[in-house]
Amino acid sequence: MDRRSFLRTSALGGSAAAAATLAAPAYAQGKRTLTLVTTWGRGLAGVHDAAQYCADAITAITDGQLTVDLKAAGELVGAFEVFDAVSAGQADMYHGVDYYFLGQHPALSFFSQVPFGMTFQEYNNWFHHGGGRELADELYTIFGLKCFSAGNTGPQSGGWYAKQMNSPEDFQGLKFRMPGQGGQVMGKLGASVQNLPGSEVYQALASGAIDGTEWIGPWADEKAGFQEITKIYYTAGFHEPGPNLNLTVNLEVFESLTPAHQAAIQNAAGACNIWNMSQFMANNAAALTRLQAGGVQVMEFPDSVWDAFGAAAQEVIAEPMGDELYKKCYDSYMASLKSSASWSGRSEAAFSVQRNRIMGL
Amino acid sequence: MDRRSFLRTSALGGSAAAAATLAAPAYAQGKRTLTLVTTWGRGLAGVHDAAQYCADAITAITDGQLTVDLKAAGELVGAFEVFDAVSAGQADMYHGVDYYFLGQHPALSFFSQVPFGMTFQEYNNWFHHGGGRELADELYTIFGLKCFSAGNTGPQSGGWYAKQMNSPEDFQGLKFRMPGQGGQVMGKLGASVQNLPGSEVYQALASGAIDGTEWIGPWADEKAGFQEITKIYYTAGFHEPGPNLNLTVNLEVFESLTPAHQAAIQNAAGACNIWNMSQFMANNAAALTRLQAGGVQVMEFPDSVWDAFGAAAQEVIAEPMGDELYKKCYDSYMASLKSSASWSGRSEAAFSVQRNRIMGL
Repeated sequence: MDRRSFLRTSALGGSAAAAATLAAPAYAQGKRTLTLVTTWGRGLAGVHDAAQYCADAITAITDGQLTVDLKAAGELVGAFEVFDAVSAGQADMYHGVDYYFLGQHPALSFFSQVPFGMTFQEYNNWFHHGGGRELADELYTIFGLKCFSAGNTGPQSGGWYAKQMNSPEDFQGLKFRMPGQGGQVMGKLGASVQNLPGSEVYQALASGAIDGTEWIGPWADEKAGFQEITKIYYTAGFHEPGPNLNLTVNLEVFESLTPAHQAAIQNAAGACNIWNMSQFMANNAAALTRLQAGGVQVMEFPDSVWDAFGAAAQEVIAEPMGDELYKKCYDSYMASLKSSASWSGRSEAAFSVQRNRIMGL
Repeated sequence: MDRRSFLRTSALGGSAAAAATLAAPAYAQGKRTLTLVTTWGRGLAGVHDAAQYCADAITAITDGQLTVDLKAAGELVGAFEVFDAVSAGQADMYHGVDYYFLGQHPALSFFSQVPFGMTFQEYNNWFHHGGGRELADELYTIFGLKCFSAGNTGPQSGGWYAKQMNSPEDFQGLKFRMPGQGGQVMGKLGASVQNLPGSEVYQALASGAIDGTEWIGPWADEKAGFQEITKIYYTAGFHEPGPNLNLTVNLEVFESLTPAHQAAIQNAAGACNIWNMSQFMANNAAALTRLQAGGVQVMEFPDSVWDAFGAAAQEVIAEPMGDELYKKCYDSYMASLKSSASWSGRSEAAFSVQRNRIMGL
């Protein structure tokens, strides 16, 4: 699937063509502004913060030789247009989550989130030390892109509902916001699934255009204000145990940079990755307590619902397997996940059970 | 506790004094070599790799304006001398784990490892978003240092023993290698505890100078070769669920750098942090399988031993509480740990139980 030749000749391709005519040394000698677009509305808690971290860090490290100009969703292009825009060179880089772009390639799920898939740590095990980086390069190069892990929300909550969800049948006809393969799973349970960018979710829920939504977790959800509309909140969800956010750079732009500036981008993204994951994890417990104090009922799905999610997820994950690169990513991802889960069960999980028992946590 | 005035007038203080006479702009205009010493023998799996990552990344990002010269333990100063050496300006920075230096200040345990304490993720929640950074600055400034999280081994294994450990009484008289507050806990159980740097452990175990040891986890332990000496291996341990490795810079040196170079160090350390944690986590499962294939028996401590560890740990953690800064760190650390554990139990732990059940992991 080679979209580059298409994009280079499309209306969006103009900037890329112009960029390609500049010799690399010209970039190295003078200051250069890089435009960063995002899938996030300006100010969206945590996710916009991660994009801002990357922009500020790259600018600071390079002493402004690379000055990153952050344009939130809608300021230059829409949330769901950033992939094509950076692929075509209309912007230099984007920060976002790539399950919004499964229409471009189904294997992008492995580099954002597979339902019942990897947590933050498991993803980083695979990406940095289990073959993920090499497969990402193979996939993103098709689109003239280079990705760097640069944030993660941690395990996302099951979401906000108008009523308790007691059986798989309760999802029939439900109008629900959920992106990516998770949304496809909900569709198999009979839900009518909508894929809205974050900045449009509150209005859709308030107006009744959707019956329910997931967004991120207690801290970001509280800031979005969903508790003003409904009070039924499911914590653990199946759909996004550790969605990877990427800082993705136009490949020709990246290759035109000096090795020092390439290293600046790579390390800024890496530092952002753990900084941002920790931001979500540090703030969720207190937010959940506040939500509960405000009357929110915190629920867990029954096993029958988890089982239905699981059966549907296995179908959804299997569907694109005819694509050779998808299959290659799947095999690598699942082998790494199995290995990571095997060790964490024996180590962190076993430790945490003993610690929480003994220390009363 | 102000050691700076002592150190500045000690024999080690010469280089610091010399460094202080150079004006900051002189650093900014020319290339500068920074000496990085470590608590790790050259080539020690994972831990030396983290130090090397930092050295390479800082050099690359700054295009050699800061060239980091890595001296492993023993090449310039010994493993246990790095804290004082960098405090005094004899070297510019060190990479290491700060429970080796509890003699300098007991609160260093919070920035390395407290037994039954924080995992990697919990530590980063606290450090970046829960007040840890500010407390670290208060503590390290006493010694003229500035620390950056730059690696983590993940949950460490209980270790290698000559016989099965079936009750707390089995630790009586055991000659065991374990550093930090974990070692103090073992001492309360009657063990004779030794604090050896990593590069000296194999020889001590082989010679019978110690009866047993912990080191890191399956991957690093296999590379160290302990399976050649004993075959009894406990996986989950109480002592180091997520030891934080610091890249720690002499404060005057750090403050003499340009903001861009300061940002380079900070972001290189941050990127190293998750890269290194993932390195350990990606490699442990396969190493454990190999160890088992080679005849190693993988064990878990019985609850009676965990309970004894727990009671002794609470005594050890309470002992330095008369120190005001220790108490301040303890209160902040425990509040953050409680918050993090509360959310991870509801989210990642709840998800993982369902996932592993449904996906057969």
